[in-house]
Amino acid sequence: MVVHREVRTTELRRTYGFEEVAIVPGDVTTNPELSVTDLTIGPFSFSTPVLASAMDAVANPAFAGHMSRLGGLSVINLEGIQTRYDDPTDAIEEIIAADKDDVTTVFQRLYLQPIREDLIAKRVAEVKKTGAVCAVSLTPAMTKKYAPMAVEAGADILVVQSTVTTARHISRSYRGLVLSEIIAELKVPVLVGNVVTYSAAMELMEQGIDGLLVGVGPGAACTTREVTGIGVPQVSGTLDCAAARDDFYANGGKHVVIITDGGIRTGGDLCKALAAGADGVMIGTPMAQTEEAPGKGFNWGMASPHPALPRGTRINVGVRGTLEEVLLGPSHRTDGTMNLIGALKICMSYVGATTIAEFHEKAELVVAPTIATEGKSYQRAGLI
Amino acid sequence: MVVHREVRTTELRRTYGFEEVAIVPGDVTTNPELSVTDLTIGPFSFSTPVLASAMDAVANPAFAGHMSRLGGLSVINLEGIQTRYDDPTDAIEEIIAADKDDVTTVFQRLYLQPIREDLIAKRVAEVKKTGAVCAVSLTPAMTKKYAPMAVEAGADILVVQSTVTTARHISRSYRGLVLSEIIAELKVPVLVGNVVTYSAAMELMEQGIDGLLVGVGPGAACTTREVTGIGVPQVSGTLDCAAARDDFYANGGKHVVIITDGGIRTGGDLCKALAAGADGVMIGTPMAQTEEAPGKGFNWGMASPHPALPRGTRINVGVRGTLEEVLLGPSHRTDGTMNLIGALKICMSYVGATTIAEFHEKAELVVAPTIATEGKSYQRAGLI
Amino acid sequence: MVVHREVRTTELRRTYGFEEVAIVPGDVTTNPELSVTDLTIGPFSFSTPVLASAMDAVANPAFAGHMSRLGGLSVINLEGIQTRYDDPTDAIEEIIAADKDDVTTVFQRLYLQPIREDLIAKRVAEVKKTGAVCAVSLTPAMTKKYAPMAVEAGADILVVQSTVTTARHISRSYRGLVLSEIIAELKVPVLVGNVVTYSAAMELMEQGIDGLLVGVGPGAACTTREVTGIGVPQVSGTLDCAAARDDFYANGGKHVVIITDGGIRTGGDLCKALAAGADGVMIGTPMAQTEEAPGKGFNWGMASPHPALPRGTRINVGVRGTLEEVLLGPSHRTDGTMNLIGALKICMSYVGATTIAEFHEKAELVVAPTIATEGKSYQRAGLI
Amino acid sequence: MVVHREVRTTELRRTYGFEEVAIVPGDVTTNPELSVTDLTIGPFSFSTPVLASAMDAVANPAFAGHMSRLGGLSVINLEGIQTRYDDPTDAIEEIIAADKDDVTTVFQRLYLQPIREDLIAKRVAEVKKTGAVCAVSLTPAMTKKYAPMAVEAGADILVVQSTVTTARHISRSYRGLVLSEIIAELKVPVLVGNVVTYSAAMELMEQGIDGLLVGVGPGAACTTREVTGIGVPQVSGTLDCAAARDDFYANGGKHVVIITDGGIRTGGDLCKALAAGADGVMIGTPMAQTEEAPGKGFNWGMASPHPALPRGTRINVGVRGTLEEVLLGPSHRTDGTMNLIGALKICMSYVGATTIAEFHEKAELVVAPTIATEGKSYQRAGLI
Repeated sequence: MVVHREVRTTELRRTYGFEEVAIVPGDVTTNPELSVTDLTIGPFSFSTPVLASAMDAVANPAFAGHMSRLGGLSVINLEGIQTRYDDPTDAIEEIIAADKDDVTTVFQRLYLQPIREDLIAKRVAEVKKTGAVCAVSLTPAMTKKYAPMAVEAGADILVVQSTVTTARHISRSYRGLVLSEIIAELKVPVLVGNVVTYSAAMELMEQGIDGLLVGVGPGAACTTREVTGIGVPQVSGTLDCAAARDDFYANGGKHVVIITDGGIRTGGDLCKALAAGADGVMIGTPMAQTEEAPGKGFNWGMASPHPALPRGTRINVGVRGTLEEVLLGPSHRTDGTMNLIGALKICMSYVGATTIAEFHEKAELVVAPTIATEGKSYQRAGLI
Repeated sequence: MVVHREVRTTELRRTYGFEEVAIVPGDVTTNPELSVTDLTIGPFSFSTPVLASAMDAVANPAFAGHMSRLGGLSVINLEGIQTRYDDPTDAIEEIIAADKDDVTTVFQRLYLQPIREDLIAKRVAEVKKTGAVCAVSLTPAMTKKYAPMAVEAGADILVVQSTVTTARHISRSYRGLVLSEIIAELKVPVLVGNVVTYSAAMELMEQGIDGLLVGVGPGAACTTREVTGIGVPQVSGTLDCAAARDDFYANGGKHVVIITDGGIRTGGDLCKALAAGADGVMIGTPMAQTEEAPGKGFNWGMASPHPALPRGTRINVGVRGTLEEVLLGPSHRTDGTMNLIGALKICMSYVGATTIAEFHEKAELVVAPTIATEGKSYQRAGLI
Repeated sequence: MVVHREVRTTELRRTYGFEEVAIVPGDVTTNPELSVTDLTIGPFSFSTPVLASAMDAVANPAFAGHMSRLGGLSVINLEGIQTRYDDPTDAIEEIIAADKDDVTTVFQRLYLQPIREDLIAKRVAEVKKTGAVCAVSLTPAMTKKYAPMAVEAGADILVVQSTVTTARHISRSYRGLVLSEIIAELKVPVLVGNVVTYSAAMELMEQGIDGLLVGVGPGAACTTREVTGIGVPQVSGTLDCAAARDDFYANGGKHVVIITDGGIRTGGDLCKALAAGADGVMIGTPMAQTEEAPGKGFNWGMASPHPALPRGTRINVGVRGTLEEVLLGPSHRTDGTMNLIGALKICMSYVGATTIAEFHEKAELVVAPTIATEGKSYQRAGLI
Repeated sequence: MVVHREVRTTELRRTYGFEEVAIVPGDVTTNPELSVTDLTIGPFSFSTPVLASAMDAVANPAFAGHMSRLGGLSVINLEGIQTRYDDPTDAIEEIIAADKDDVTTVFQRLYLQPIREDLIAKRVAEVKKTGAVCAVSLTPAMTKKYAPMAVEAGADILVVQSTVTTARHISRSYRGLVLSEIIAELKVPVLVGNVVTYSAAMELMEQGIDGLLVGVGPGAACTTREVTGIGVPQVSGTLDCAAARDDFYANGGKHVVIITDGGIRTGGDLCKALAAGADGVMIGTPMAQTEEAPGKGFNWGMASPHPALPRGTRINVGVRGTLEEVLLGPSHRTDGTMNLIGALKICMSYVGATTIAEFHEKAELVVAPTIATEGKSYQRAGLI
């Protein structure tokens, strides 16, 4: 056989997603009640290291209040339904009621309605009234215009987010967003994303940001990878960005939080994201599956309404329980979709970690293909 | 193409499960009737190297008697139905009859009934009356309290078992279980588990134990990996723990038996566990599928009744035949689920081994994905 | 365990297909409207780097006109239905109407009708009348006979194409096709294929060709790999041939264009082909799915009518929209099958490339198995 | 993250099956009509390098005649139905008519009937009367007793075959089969199998055999791997045994033929076996699918009737066409299951080989997972 064919190309780099890896238990174990899961963003501390995605089916001011009471944080999208309609309920109802074949067209129409500046202030005020920390989200293109308004109205945390965000963005306009300037101007913690590589993460941290959102192409409500080929599985994205965070800090930079955003469906996925180095996670679909979510059992991504190239659609994700059950339990399901924080605490105890920093240090991830989880054939065969 | 992107993370370690590996035949073959499959635990010897899991759908005193007559060993769970109810039949009936959506709630209620100390002695006596070696199982938290009672009542072997067990467990209570002390006190063989790594296995062996249970997250009736992300496929777990056993023995330690626990459905799986270095196996679902099992064709894991985070559910596994047919044959099925020991003897003969120790030495495992077993498409297409 | 068994064989080389890889976003991003996607073949430039396959269900003179208006190029097959029948419509209708079990026999009969030289000139003239650049396709065996006629009739580009084409082909006939001679004689750009290796690509480029078609065995309407075992996944084939192009050019050769041909269904696939080094792509099924295609929602490969060993069949691919929607959008679908060029422009912007040459330089491909795109289970479960 | 956990186990060796590999086209191509596919076994030459398996659903004397006329060889099993029943038709009818759940029991009963020595001579004579070369098959245990009778009756080639056969077999009986002695005694070519490793192949060749059958656990009608864990995918088994053949010959040994036995369903599989180094193949199911086969569209392996551990069952494989169509075409199917030799000739021409020896030298196999054959999703989706 020909074994030395002239080949000029190198082996491609291997990346890993949640389904392919598992966490190895440690040599010392602890009791789960010793696990502390705090996430700190600037001056704010959250006992539940979970951010609800800035999606219209997930987060509205009332939901932000619920998240706050359970120790987490919800992010309001300032470029979605909430700032385009006085009463967003009708628009959401229309999306839910749309025929499956028409839903992309309905999205494209509803999101053409202009953003109203008065509604930005109104939504911020509504969040603050619940007692929650108010986090708002904007795309890079809209940040210079709307972020100051939101902060003035009382927003506590700014999230600057697009499919892929870099410190050096080239555009035709004379001068784009300079992150270091907006950070200096606003004086609130700024989270930026999404990124998936060491180098892009490093360059963004050098702008003075407080947190990074990790994840391009992984979410259930997003088809960026199918449409454009772009995407890095979440375990690899998180490992690389967490390595950048550690190096940045070791070289005298501030501690930047890593938030793995997208693709997390179960407690197992959440645990793997944190084992890979994340300080917290941002989740959409599991939040959309709660009774408190505005989407009433449906979810859709913020790239779904794109006028020329929609990359996502409406998913009927169903309602699984209350937000409290999903985050803190108790669970009456056995598939890992409820009591996410209870699962994290048990996982930390198996690894022998009492804090997330210790978990980062002690957890080992191994490649363990799903096909290798023996005995699951009963589940696959529908025998349960 | 960018080929040297700055990446800070190393390649993750690869692990293997049963479905991905196969055993290579040897250069010398023998006749199957020459194969001796004995397993020795302390002073006890078993011609069938199979332990029936300490699950309520699998093991009760009568079942222990059946296992004994066929050369194996059954383990009674001292924290399950058997020690909470005078007549466990009703509780089992209720579980079997429960509606699929309610079964987790039923579990959570039934297992809240307190453990009765009189029933511990009663179950041990019932096992002894069958003539079987009596093995009982406790979690680490309950071992100090109940193990002495069980041994006093006549238990011959103690199994200390939880999802993940380590020699150094940290708890809020002043002082947890010290394995070396309980072993010195009880004077019966002690098996401990579950573990999956070389280092955790080594530390447990240094406590003076007689056997190790290997397996975190693999079983059919357990969803630990989905819920918490924790799990190591069984071939890798067994290879690593067997390596620890060999090193421990080479350095003057006693011979500790390695029992691969969970995920074994077929003769092929059993053979692979032993080829990876196990001295015996613990199996649940194939035992629950026998006519003699108390679960009457159903099975559930001992993490299923967890009040806040159940990790498993009731599976309808069906009844496939008698315990004798499953263990020793003859088989009238061709999928490997019956005559497990017959399969092992043939496998040993293909490898040219007449004892399990020789099998450890001579068997080679290779990575051979299931997709690579050619010609199986007829089976997949349902043509059989 | 045996770990040093005597093995004489080396590890096989790993190849990659579209479904296994993904593109990593860059450290600098741009705006999509800055992306220029021009493909240049000899004196001709195409703003849409897409060639429609020389398949009878895809390309006829009218379709060539549509492609031209949208910036692309359609290739007319001079050995198909178009040159065997005055009015090809009836033959196509017969194929479409054939019973599934008879369709291979219908193919075999219809393609036995002889090629008419007058129809070659007629089809070329019809293409030219639409204003399009006229590209025609011939197999190597027929090139010496028919290519001069086609060029004399006005054909602008010649495509010499068979399943596998090499510069050194051995046949019983006294002297086969010598590419360098036909190229010198015809004085039009010549594209040759199909190839998948560095060495075969290099030898063909040394003949003076202008473009290479890359792809053996990947297309939806072709079963060459099932039938003969021959095939290299498209990402590896493109990487290797693009490496040959770069080396050939670096050593003073002319710039040869690499066209990835076959297996491209989505914008993501197209982007990956270009990220791997292609200058353009040739696509069949997505073109057959347009309202303008002669196949009316069906497609078949040119190896389907083979009298003794058909390697492909008629596929009902459905009609998805207009050619403009498929190539340039807007899209009302979210699965990546529409607005292929819009997707490419966004992908280029995520990588920070404004030209295809820059995209070659900046894009990194990683191995990212489809199973690793987390959260897609909702789609798999049919919840959308 | 823990990256240097103490691990004692080495990486397992990777093996390959047909579905994971593909053949790379060569740098020179030829015309298919130049391909010569001769297989030589001792003094016999076969233009079709295919042996029909010694299975009762495949081979009887009449079938041997058909194979001979088409250039191949059929092997009669001397321990099956043919030598236990005067008229085997009734037994075969009973197997075909048996209820799916009873078929293993029917097998076990029918194959208990004793072998009749007169029928051995009768079957050999029947084969000879067709003009075919007569090949017969025996297990190692029965070879000393029956092989001399078969040769005396006129058998031309002896096949000694069991699931795993080695030169050094240990049994309780005083002295087992010594291959070198039986070979010296019989004076006909002897083929032995099955093997899958370099070392076992080498030891068997040193006994003086003429051919090796390669394959443990791959066939469609066999579940050895499920039942016992034993099995090596066919591409790796063939690569290793072919390497042994080459080394044996290079060191002065005779040329031994390598026959890949089992798991071959398509022309692609056959081509890959030969590309991996086989001189010919033995196939069961594709033969059982011919109109001439005694099984009338059913097939079963010779391990199916095992009294205690059946490893295979009756498969309804259907009738696909005549033996001539399956071997030499023409084909009216496009899935590679017909015209196997036509496919081989085309494959050889793509690689530029005119003989099987040249094909061994020039063919490169690469790892190309089936999932990587792009565009096949239409087939998976049932759109054809």
